[in-house]
Amino acid sequence: MRIEVNCSRNYPIIIEKGCLKDIKKYIDDNRRIMIISDDMVPQEYCDALKLQLNNCDVKIVKHGEGAKSFEIYEDCLRTLLKLNYSRHDLIIALGGGVVGDLAGFVASTYKRGIHFINIPTTTLAQIDSSIGGKVAINVDEIKNCVGAFYQPSLVLIDPEVLNTLSKRHYNNGLVEAIKAGLIGDEALFKLFEEDNLDIEQIIYRSLLVKKRVVEQDEKEEGIRKILNFGHTFGHAYESYYHLHDYYHGECVALGMMVVLDDEDIKKRLAKILHRLDIPTSCNANRNEILHLLLNDKKADHNMIDLVKVDKIGEAKIINMPIKELEKYI
Amino acid sequence: MRIEVNCSRNYPIIIEKGCLKDIKKYIDDNRRIMIISDDMVPQEYCDALKLQLNNCDVKIVKHGEGAKSFEIYEDCLRTLLKLNYSRHDLIIALGGGVVGDLAGFVASTYKRGIHFINIPTTTLAQIDSSIGGKVAINVDEIKNCVGAFYQPSLVLIDPEVLNTLSKRHYNNGLVEAIKAGLIGDEALFKLFEEDNLDIEQIIYRSLLVKKRVVEQDEKEEGIRKILNFGHTFGHAYESYYHLHDYYHGECVALGMMVVLDDEDIKKRLAKILHRLDIPTSCNANRNEILHLLLNDKKADHNMIDLVKVDKIGEAKIINMPIKELEKYI
Repeated sequence: MRIEVNCSRNYPIIIEKGCLKDIKKYIDDNRRIMIISDDMVPQEYCDALKLQLNNCDVKIVKHGEGAKSFEIYEDCLRTLLKLNYSRHDLIIALGGGVVGDLAGFVASTYKRGIHFINIPTTTLAQIDSSIGGKVAINVDEIKNCVGAFYQPSLVLIDPEVLNTLSKRHYNNGLVEAIKAGLIGDEALFKLFEEDNLDIEQIIYRSLLVKKRVVEQDEKEEGIRKILNFGHTFGHAYESYYHLHDYYHGECVALGMMVVLDDEDIKKRLAKILHRLDIPTSCNANRNEILHLLLNDKKADHNMIDLVKVDKIGEAKIINMPIKELEKYI
Repeated sequence: MRIEVNCSRNYPIIIEKGCLKDIKKYIDDNRRIMIISDDMVPQEYCDALKLQLNNCDVKIVKHGEGAKSFEIYEDCLRTLLKLNYSRHDLIIALGGGVVGDLAGFVASTYKRGIHFINIPTTTLAQIDSSIGGKVAINVDEIKNCVGAFYQPSLVLIDPEVLNTLSKRHYNNGLVEAIKAGLIGDEALFKLFEEDNLDIEQIIYRSLLVKKRVVEQDEKEEGIRKILNFGHTFGHAYESYYHLHDYYHGECVALGMMVVLDDEDIKKRLAKILHRLDIPTSCNANRNEILHLLLNDKKADHNMIDLVKVDKIGEAKIINMPIKELEKYI
């Protein structure tokens, strides 16, 4: 399957089982290639790429949000400089969202922009973070506050690599697909109510929702904010639990549950989440969550855009005083 | 005078004597504003801005290429974060090329891009570096190897601020205007053969040449390379002298002199340079210059694009083996 994304740079997303084993079909290796990956990505995937590609270098960073730091960012750039990479060479991100964000930001700024291909290896990254062009690092606790909008030249999705993920990690990523269904595609949402999950269709339809939104508003000046459905509270939960007790997708699930007003949708969502062993409520301290919401970086003069879904497949953005979020918890 | 630049983001350049004293005419200060400047820019210019604008913060960095480091870049970003600047706020660069490069790169990456206005205060920056969208920092000795193409929303040029520059500094910047004349505007070149230099016309016409080139090739994939006329050897001289004995413009002057084949143009250029007290030859060691040329970062597989001018106002790019540069020195 193939999706064409049309924005400041047009690029294809290819979804193909086993494509990692047939990489030369998609990537021209008549140039130097730096693979940036982390130590949680199974070695076999990196080895598979190295075996097939000429002129390949590999940079492995420590897994986790810590890799999105100034220090690692600078280290990657210095490695490229030392090896004398030119603007016409290539960086491949092989890993989850963290690797894509880091490698993408490195690519966007090395010699003012070098070619970049993203090969996401987690459900979360395949469904969501690998497209849209947002790349960034963190500063201390502040996520994604230094970065760029930088489009890859290709996103290559091999659903087979998901087989090595733990069940919890796998399901965690599916939350962004459920979200995509809720905000933009009822049929996608319904796929989660089937007996068997068709993962390829789920990835494909999720990316179509995101593509449609991103093409309209590449730099998040308006409509793109609907992708944040569930994330306002989700980010507060993430900060509260420091990503220890809950993963990103799990926090977004919690965040969607609290802002849904329609009881029927809420019930259907809860049923799907239960089946996937994803929590639908938590015991976070109400006052602390409220405090975190008040400090949301997307807030502007005490107002915030909250995304609401009252009908599956349709989202709306409501600008409201942050204080009013209180009623949801 | 006003020039509209049309590229990925359109923006105006305004050239107006005294505009620094009437800043509210050009800048909406209904937002927070961070002025980034250096300790060589006369205090009075920064004070003038602060007096006229609300919500103004100031970040002064140490002057010189050293300011274009990872360390200072990170420090600027942390300052913005600490003060809680939003994406809708503004960064103003007030200074020469170094300040513009640094502040522009900070602006391009802070929260994935914050508004940016450039107020260049040197001839070099007013004539050349303030437009074109190239922003960057250095890594050790490697200039501009980490950066972005990021267009400002406005460039504001007040020729009156040039009065506080030393004569040498002032003339140094004029070399880029002479270069602009040689590659793209014979009338501009001839302005330097008049009895009195019309600085406003010189700035205006130089920017028109650059605008024309940059609009055709924003990301330097082809024609934009003609702006490098004199810079291939110029950069080698810069490295050789570590910018101690000669300024950037002076090195470019030396670099233009060596690659001109036409004796008449060469004579006319030498006459202009003499009048401005700019050197036309130097005593650099031939072998060392050759060695530096071989390591030029713009070289690709031992080939290099050399810009040649055989007729005033017309440039051409010749791809040649680096070795052949030998014959010019």
